[in-house]
Amino acid sequence: MDGKEKMITIKVGELKRICVDKLMAAGVLEQEAVMITDILVEADQRGVHSHGVVCLPRYISLIRSGIMQKTARYRVVNHIGSVDVWDGERSNGQVLGCYAMRSAIENAEKSGIAVVAVRNSNHFGAGAYYSKMAAEKGMIGITVSTGAPTMAPWGGAERMLGNNPLAIAVPRKDHAPMILDMAMSVVAFGKITNMAKQGIPRIPEGWALDQNGEATTDVHNVYSVAPIAGYKGYGLALMIDIIAGILSGGGTGERAGDEENGPGQLYVAMDIRQFGNSQNFYQELEERIDELRSCQLAEGTKEILMPGDLECTIYEHSKEYVNLMKEIMDELEAVGKEQEG
Amino acid sequence: MDGKEKMITIKVGELKRICVDKLMAAGVLEQEAVMITDILVEADQRGVHSHGVVCLPRYISLIRSGIMQKTARYRVVNHIGSVDVWDGERSNGQVLGCYAMRSAIENAEKSGIAVVAVRNSNHFGAGAYYSKMAAEKGMIGITVSTGAPTMAPWGGAERMLGNNPLAIAVPRKDHAPMILDMAMSVVAFGKITNMAKQGIPRIPEGWALDQNGEATTDVHNVYSVAPIAGYKGYGLALMIDIIAGILSGGGTGERAGDEENGPGQLYVAMDIRQFGNSQNFYQELEERIDELRSCQLAEGTKEILMPGDLECTIYEHSKEYVNLMKEIMDELEAVGKEQEG
Repeated sequence: MDGKEKMITIKVGELKRICVDKLMAAGVLEQEAVMITDILVEADQRGVHSHGVVCLPRYISLIRSGIMQKTARYRVVNHIGSVDVWDGERSNGQVLGCYAMRSAIENAEKSGIAVVAVRNSNHFGAGAYYSKMAAEKGMIGITVSTGAPTMAPWGGAERMLGNNPLAIAVPRKDHAPMILDMAMSVVAFGKITNMAKQGIPRIPEGWALDQNGEATTDVHNVYSVAPIAGYKGYGLALMIDIIAGILSGGGTGERAGDEENGPGQLYVAMDIRQFGNSQNFYQELEERIDELRSCQLAEGTKEILMPGDLECTIYEHSKEYVNLMKEIMDELEAVGKEQEG
Repeated sequence: MDGKEKMITIKVGELKRICVDKLMAAGVLEQEAVMITDILVEADQRGVHSHGVVCLPRYISLIRSGIMQKTARYRVVNHIGSVDVWDGERSNGQVLGCYAMRSAIENAEKSGIAVVAVRNSNHFGAGAYYSKMAAEKGMIGITVSTGAPTMAPWGGAERMLGNNPLAIAVPRKDHAPMILDMAMSVVAFGKITNMAKQGIPRIPEGWALDQNGEATTDVHNVYSVAPIAGYKGYGLALMIDIIAGILSGGGTGERAGDEENGPGQLYVAMDIRQFGNSQNFYQELEERIDELRSCQLAEGTKEILMPGDLECTIYEHSKEYVNLMKEIMDELEAVGKEQEG
């Protein structure tokens, strides 16, 4: 154990001010800096620190190297009926994500379901945010993205597939939306990297493979992360590759990386109201949740959780102050310092 | 080992004739009997025997008890833009599935994406079939269904969730569509039942839980099947419950059972052509497949497979003759005999 895992507590407003300042110093417009910051900080407030302000130094480095647009822009490649395809022209992934889901929501108000596919995007943080945007408008939101490769195809030894996340948000009555936000790998690669940094030598079985595609528990032999559920998770990751990447004209595999085409993303909104009796939907959903929560518990279980319950609880405790690894805060504060000197 | 696992080989045409005859004897119109039969037999031809003609006796019993309509009919509950909601009025699931996906395909030709949600349906066999219908028209097809409960919510001990299958089919150029058809449980409940019948005492770890929600490998203690990937598979099954069940107004949990409301299903078609340059789509997809297939192999792997490759290979060898467990054939031939005597 070294100092790297020390935690600090910071006021949400203070953290946001730092992020906005850093982004604006890199040339980002204030309104977009606020948008990006809100999404990153919300991930930290939900306890999803892998997709929080830890991402900001990477974004600013992409802006400074001219890969990421300072000011977001996109080109409508195709618009027909309920489908939009945009070229994100390597704008910020968060800003594109907000615009894209907003557009999907508007279109779904007319047609019941709508999809916006975005190519040449960037890392967009936690997909939960965009799906939740739809849920807050009474729609089911679905967000998928390709990512740079961290997984091997099933039976393979080379990293060729992103862990391609899927986020689904469902609106609830008098409750925050139910949100499932999951990657197609058993764990995030970053989690293993962090364990290595902390001097933890072994990871649980089933998490990762070595360079020969063999299962490994040695944190220093990890080359790729394992897909969830074996070939099923590989299949799901590949389908998201096709739907978020190839269908959008975006990057898959290596081409989804920061320095290549960047990822492709796809946003779906389904308007509950257009499916008939939305009153019934909300009532049946609550009844179903109550039913599941009433399930007899297995030993060692305290309660039956719905997807996103844990993040919701953490969020409730992080409205004013958020806990962060000191290392993340140090890196954030160092951003741009080299330019100032 | 007893006689129950004996295999027989039967001509596809002969098997179809038997199924059509049995359905017609139960009062099903010839064209619908042919439709149901084609879907069941195709599952057997793809090696997916759990969703093949083994289902037919159950359907005929539902017809005879007045639960399943002899002649399929449905009521359009809602139609707006790209969304249809149908009440299947407990018609046959296969016939409803064909009509619903056909309608989604037609609507997607205009709007790019379309969805048909069906409530009060019945078991529809393998979802792969309906998704493939879309793929054969140059669309990505997505099919989801609720099912009677075989899984406990994560941390729970009671069966409350179906293993809610998801089938995605992607069109390919000069190739059969790529098809991912998976349930949200590690294995089908029927697979364990079959092992018990064959006198196999132990199942692999991670497959199932006992009545207390504890993991078990004793085939006789199995009460529920485990979700894939732990809480992630539970989350996915619940989201399909909501999308295929609650959004359609269909059954979830116990209510998805044959004798209750029956399952809800949702069919999505996304027209590749409406996403812009479909030529690129097909080219990039083939390049991506080639790339993945070229991956360095882990020891013990012969080749990298795409979802559905195995089923495709079995199908190629089963165009004229199909292998079936003798027990399935015996049960099929016994259908209706009690009425005749």
